[in-house]
Amino acid sequence: MKLAIVGGGQLGRMMAQAALPLGIKSLLLDPIADACGVDCGELLVAAYDDPASLDSLAQQCDAVTFEFENVPPAAVSRLAKDIPAYPPAQALETARDRWNEKSLFQSLNIATATLALVDDQASLVQGVAKVGFPCVLKTRTLGYDGKGQKVLRSSVDIEGTFEELGAVPLLLEGFVDFDYEVSCLSVRGRDGECVFYPLVENEHRQGILHKSRPLLNHPLQSQAAQAAQAVMEAIDYVGVMAFEFFVQGDHLVANEIAPRVHNSGHWTIEGSACSQFENHVRAVMGLPLGSTETSRPIAMLNVIGKRPDIHKLLAIPGVHLNDYGKAERQGRKIAHINISAVNEADLLVRLDAVEGILVNNL
Amino acid sequence: MKLAIVGGGQLGRMMAQAALPLGIKSLLLDPIADACGVDCGELLVAAYDDPASLDSLAQQCDAVTFEFENVPPAAVSRLAKDIPAYPPAQALETARDRWNEKSLFQSLNIATATLALVDDQASLVQGVAKVGFPCVLKTRTLGYDGKGQKVLRSSVDIEGTFEELGAVPLLLEGFVDFDYEVSCLSVRGRDGECVFYPLVENEHRQGILHKSRPLLNHPLQSQAAQAAQAVMEAIDYVGVMAFEFFVQGDHLVANEIAPRVHNSGHWTIEGSACSQFENHVRAVMGLPLGSTETSRPIAMLNVIGKRPDIHKLLAIPGVHLNDYGKAERQGRKIAHINISAVNEADLLVRLDAVEGILVNNL
Repeated sequence: MKLAIVGGGQLGRMMAQAALPLGIKSLLLDPIADACGVDCGELLVAAYDDPASLDSLAQQCDAVTFEFENVPPAAVSRLAKDIPAYPPAQALETARDRWNEKSLFQSLNIATATLALVDDQASLVQGVAKVGFPCVLKTRTLGYDGKGQKVLRSSVDIEGTFEELGAVPLLLEGFVDFDYEVSCLSVRGRDGECVFYPLVENEHRQGILHKSRPLLNHPLQSQAAQAAQAVMEAIDYVGVMAFEFFVQGDHLVANEIAPRVHNSGHWTIEGSACSQFENHVRAVMGLPLGSTETSRPIAMLNVIGKRPDIHKLLAIPGVHLNDYGKAERQGRKIAHINISAVNEADLLVRLDAVEGILVNNL
Repeated sequence: MKLAIVGGGQLGRMMAQAALPLGIKSLLLDPIADACGVDCGELLVAAYDDPASLDSLAQQCDAVTFEFENVPPAAVSRLAKDIPAYPPAQALETARDRWNEKSLFQSLNIATATLALVDDQASLVQGVAKVGFPCVLKTRTLGYDGKGQKVLRSSVDIEGTFEELGAVPLLLEGFVDFDYEVSCLSVRGRDGECVFYPLVENEHRQGILHKSRPLLNHPLQSQAAQAAQAVMEAIDYVGVMAFEFFVQGDHLVANEIAPRVHNSGHWTIEGSACSQFENHVRAVMGLPLGSTETSRPIAMLNVIGKRPDIHKLLAIPGVHLNDYGKAERQGRKIAHINISAVNEADLLVRLDAVEGILVNNL
């Protein structure tokens, strides 16, 4: 069996790593010749929309998946006419546009922040009147890790802001005064079977994920899983989908979905019976989904921009380094560290020890 | 960092798989062009004793290790003069010869079966007089998975037997009427640090390993670990060493060591905080050793000769397939299956389910 992966970064790399023990080889498409996925599969170096390369993927592989949501739609259509392509084009389209995404949530009665569409400076003023301060103005498409966003705190923040964000279609969202952020990693198979990992608490620094920890038996687990299942069924999703929420007291406010394996699920590699990467591969290839059982206390820390001393790091018990083999560069995700323990107290000690030697360059 | 691995079979493949997340790439040497390690590292296709290829390994890599004990001694020496080579030549030599190995055990007061050296038909007759029936005649070198052995039950089994086993140096061993077989996976770092995995119970079928299960808190754990540490220190061992014992009531009888990662330790991939493969790589590369914490109930089954139905297999929860990407062939190890659960009762149910669909071709 052979899987095509559009995108050869760390997510593609970890999918290919998970595919191999299942007897599945990977063919990755990436325009960068030293994309880090090259260590775990065959790399086809070409633009994401190069017709000959897309046809080559389709000819050689049994199914295709995507490392990220911004694959050119024409590329997805071209692939999907020849081989199973998951997640489906509709899911990628929905997730690419914040307004489509949140309209879908609202249509499924999933709570979101108050919203207003912004197409020019005048509609921005109207939107603020509806949503109120503070609020967050975001580009409808693209933008991630806090980029393409601006927080508006008072009327002085409004003037010229439409132009400042590029005079592109925007979405204005009421500010959610949340207690903490969680994500729900969900998987849907080709046959409609769904499984869910435990809710994950996520901590960001400067807009980039810093730490993720699964929260076992969380009271909002079933609410999150129901919302994720409703979304996945509405867009006939196949694969792993990450659903990010804000926790406000005893309820969830939907933030966004990522139609792919997700940074907040990297702890599943050592934490769960079947990792998000293996489950994504299983789903896309039409295989039965794996167990999301999570019994070992675990947490994940991102390594950004600069590597810590490997001798110090590996001397901490329960450390699982996952280095993506990428060069160091400010703000770049170059590795993650999973930390496991046999009990919660040991986990906290180990987490502190790892945090103490991280030298991230954000 | 780059690791040279002599041997590109499944053990080399799994070492290379474990090395990648540590930021270590592998260069594997194997005479077979489609050796299964090719999926996880760069493969150099050449004879194990090809001087130019050995020099190329030494030039490109930071350290070298071996997938098996029968590497030509001249190759080991050639490599060891240029880069760190572990386990050391002395360990490979000791493990290659059953007499050297067992003499070492006896010199360290580690109990073995009664032994006699056999160099011809006359010394075989003398040996049987010393050891008694039943006994097992084995070639001193080579031989594995039950090959190169003969059980002698009475005097009619003696005649012509020296010639039958190839007229090569032999070792006669008293038959050990054991309760069950265990192995102790041990790791020693370059700095002398030692860690041990829980004792593993092993079940063989037709001389080939069928099932392995770690036995947590076994009363003979410390006795086994002490014996393993004594052996590793005596031969200045670095890396993972497997020590096989027979359990007879409340004591251990040493059988043999394997100076490498071992089939009876494959369960550590999903069962322990740090797998035998990662710990071997850490040891050989001079990195701190990882935790051998094992808290999740787990077992391993070998897949021999023929693959089971993957849809049926993956539908069983807690199944971790590790397919080596090798063609099916009678008696060939082509994959293993680790099975995990959150409790012992579930594990037994799952194990039965997997055994029920195995279609091994021994």
